[in-house]
Amino acid sequence: MRHALQEAIAAGARDEVPIGAILVDSRTGEILARNGNRTRELSDPTAHAEILVIREECARRKVQRLDHCTLYVTLEPCPHCAAAISFARIDTIIFGAPDPKSGGVVSGPKLYTHPQLHHKPTVIEGILEQECGDILRDFFAKKRREK
Amino acid sequence: MRHALQEAIAAGARDEVPIGAILVDSRTGEILARNGNRTRELSDPTAHAEILVIREECARRKVQRLDHCTLYVTLEPCPHCAAAISFARIDTIIFGAPDPKSGGVVSGPKLYTHPQLHHKPTVIEGILEQECGDILRDFFAKKRREK
Repeated sequence: MRHALQEAIAAGARDEVPIGAILVDSRTGEILARNGNRTRELSDPTAHAEILVIREECARRKVQRLDHCTLYVTLEPCPHCAAAISFARIDTIIFGAPDPKSGGVVSGPKLYTHPQLHHKPTVIEGILEQECGDILRDFFAKKRREK
Repeated sequence: MRHALQEAIAAGARDEVPIGAILVDSRTGEILARNGNRTRELSDPTAHAEILVIREECARRKVQRLDHCTLYVTLEPCPHCAAAISFARIDTIIFGAPDPKSGGVVSGPKLYTHPQLHHKPTVIEGILEQECGDILRDFFAKKRREK
């Protein structure tokens, strides 16, 4: 999660919402892809950190499903990302801070509770929660001061 | 919706799940972007028809939000796409067939019913429902016969 936090900080420095994600080989712990939000940079409302690491590793492997992968992300994934994580058959998702306003895993539509779902990843939450949440709170507090 | 159906048929011819989408200027009716599923071709589990047209038009306009746009899609969007449609501030979404198995608008998590949501598009369903559903049923029936 320290690596994901570094990506979140780098995203904030680019004036993106500071969320970072790391995709890891569940068996070896090797980091396969790392990124932060780039929705502004890419003019792409889907360019969330989680989507970028999934797309990168799928493209590298030339597959649509990522066997034996764990995703670390600093904030609870939104419904868009939670669905993509399920499509990609990610084993385990580990997130830092919960997101009662826009989350889709333990908040709001709680996507993985629906029987429709083809693949439900294991969910671990609250890792470095304070630090993961603080960089977001600081970012938005600064934005409000600048207004 | 006839144009979206053409994209769905073209997707099926590429051995992709036959779903097609058209992005239209809500004021003039001009078609801005058109595509079908390309998850196999692009090795990208997020390359659904809806996502591709949203990303294309956002990149063209260099924005994250698509004012005055209507999205036509042959099948009820999944939660991944339903969330992206909301992020992109699409005015209206018009779909053909419902998708009780994997849909996220009128099925399953019914994403637009959650108070969390920042933008709720107008939803119109059932346009050319039979034809939009038939090409999917035919595609999967053929797949099962080939097994």
